[in-house]
Amino acid sequence: MQPTSREERLARLPLREDLRGQHPYGAPQLDVPIMLNVNENTYGVPQDVQEAIARSVREAVSTLNRYPDREFTELREALAEYLGHDLTPEQLWAANGSNEVLQQLLQAFGGPGRSALGFPPTYSMYPLLAAGTGTAYLKGVRDADYELSAESAARQVRELAPNIVFLCSPNNPTGTALGLDVVEAVYEAGEESQAIVIVDEAYAEFAQLGTQSALTLLPGRPRLVVSRTMSKAFALAGARLGYLAAAQEVTDALRLVRLPYHLSAITQATALAALQHRASLMSEVEAIKHQRDRIVKELERLGLRPASSDSNFVFFTGLADPQRIWRGLLEAGVLVRDVGIPGSLRVTAGTESETSAFLSRLEELLEEERS
Amino acid sequence: MQPTSREERLARLPLREDLRGQHPYGAPQLDVPIMLNVNENTYGVPQDVQEAIARSVREAVSTLNRYPDREFTELREALAEYLGHDLTPEQLWAANGSNEVLQQLLQAFGGPGRSALGFPPTYSMYPLLAAGTGTAYLKGVRDADYELSAESAARQVRELAPNIVFLCSPNNPTGTALGLDVVEAVYEAGEESQAIVIVDEAYAEFAQLGTQSALTLLPGRPRLVVSRTMSKAFALAGARLGYLAAAQEVTDALRLVRLPYHLSAITQATALAALQHRASLMSEVEAIKHQRDRIVKELERLGLRPASSDSNFVFFTGLADPQRIWRGLLEAGVLVRDVGIPGSLRVTAGTESETSAFLSRLEELLEEERS
Repeated sequence: MQPTSREERLARLPLREDLRGQHPYGAPQLDVPIMLNVNENTYGVPQDVQEAIARSVREAVSTLNRYPDREFTELREALAEYLGHDLTPEQLWAANGSNEVLQQLLQAFGGPGRSALGFPPTYSMYPLLAAGTGTAYLKGVRDADYELSAESAARQVRELAPNIVFLCSPNNPTGTALGLDVVEAVYEAGEESQAIVIVDEAYAEFAQLGTQSALTLLPGRPRLVVSRTMSKAFALAGARLGYLAAAQEVTDALRLVRLPYHLSAITQATALAALQHRASLMSEVEAIKHQRDRIVKELERLGLRPASSDSNFVFFTGLADPQRIWRGLLEAGVLVRDVGIPGSLRVTAGTESETSAFLSRLEELLEEERS
Repeated sequence: MQPTSREERLARLPLREDLRGQHPYGAPQLDVPIMLNVNENTYGVPQDVQEAIARSVREAVSTLNRYPDREFTELREALAEYLGHDLTPEQLWAANGSNEVLQQLLQAFGGPGRSALGFPPTYSMYPLLAAGTGTAYLKGVRDADYELSAESAARQVRELAPNIVFLCSPNNPTGTALGLDVVEAVYEAGEESQAIVIVDEAYAEFAQLGTQSALTLLPGRPRLVVSRTMSKAFALAGARLGYLAAAQEVTDALRLVRLPYHLSAITQATALAALQHRASLMSEVEAIKHQRDRIVKELERLGLRPASSDSNFVFFTGLADPQRIWRGLLEAGVLVRDVGIPGSLRVTAGTESETSAFLSRLEELLEEERS
């Protein structure tokens, strides 16, 4: 008998039909000196916060034989205090990364026979999370330059009558935040289909001056959800802590679908320590915003078209051959993200020297192209 | 306007219809001195292992700003080495608790239009995990005394043609392991419906002498899955680490449904350290088995009917009024589990003194009943 390949053996399993031929999600994991591809906080966790997290975990380890607090009460208190806006702990919810938070929302409010609307190009996990929960994924349309106006978004919500709307703000991969008028209009337009409106604010802490959070809109809007993460500004991508704020009844709904004890005692201890030491932990947010603004300015000088960014990354178009640029950067040890949009790339704002390495190599590559 | 109750506000949300009126899963969380209700390892994590976990986590914290290894390669190697049976790391998979492992299996092989068969009374999460993934849950029938014969199980699989079969061995809440003949017969009977057969061996390390693991059946059976956990024998309920062993194509399938980076760097570091120090960590398993056997013997002496147990808990029937006994034990600071089966309770085998406290209080309560 011929030995069979890995793919053939997988194909013989009784996999769900919609998964056949699919490939696992994820950016390429390459080990290079300068990783500006997945929007991590490249400054790292300051030493004092590392020590604080280690102490907090050390304490949690002493009772690790017991199941964790299923309601993660202390963590919800700390998250409410961090977000402010008079939020109560009962309005907060957390899970292992904001992907899990979004999955739970889809399990509670989506699922078979229901639909979720996103506006591509947007966070590429939305359609996958919808598929994983049997929710139909509807693709909305953006205006020119990937913008989304209140009028257009609201019209599409009225027409498509989705059960869930994803508003990514700032949007990933384009980096621009939505005005609150868009959120308000979408919420109103979703009244008829009773849509749950999720504003995904994973990058909120990097907002430009004047950009407002949808948290300000929560009072009186029980179908509005604002999701956040500790992966970006908090520099804790490895800790997997996503969370959301919403009306208390939304978190009550999530308790019906969450796996019992979904947040480990160690995850809770890590996130708590990080929140307690957030002044130190988030001290580089301004430096990152500075590098982000520097990237935008430099890309413009190089004749490219960077999108306005409220995040820790910059999306830019105007490239004749983005694959060539991507490879050229990689050869110099700089990994950026090809998000599959023609003529464009996305780069994370790193430290000053990482940003310099990216910009100077990019300039070289563009000059090669022109010569 | 009248203030509305929490339930009323939840009912107004566009919750999925099948979730309406449901209550969150979970045993009551009461703070009492002797907790023998959720089958934790009450001996706790030894001091040296606590230190080892803390050191391992401390190291992981230094790169916590980066996403974790999505493939948790080192952990899979360590789990393969622990299980033996010539398993390769590619055959191992892990998630945040075995509930998440089972949920991923349902997402890959169950879902809308598909079914999963369990044999109640069994682990009460199976129907909830099925519901959460839109999988129909079929209830099989057990023989007398909650046993399950190869013949009966195979016949039910042939008749019901499920896509997934849950075999809980040892069964929770009854505690008795299945013979491998049952697993073999169910696997064969599932050939026609191409059923994925999941043997849930959460308590395998507490097996009686001579009880064999379904791991021995894996070679040549690509539809067979054996799930395990570090919550019980490894005394790490708070760390949330469940895992499974199966053919490599099964783990390939799970990569299509897992959320990217689902296992945090800290969870990986914790589990790795625990596996490296497992000799110390699992040193009380024999002591727990001894207390379990003592409970069985003592309950028989008290005129009750304990089930044969391959786990760290004992299920017993023969109680005239289990609620009264449950309350009476609680008044003495001993929390056990009322699993809702008439005339019965379930108790975790704790330390010697915890077991003594349970047994002596139970004897008092039974004497009160008779007088």
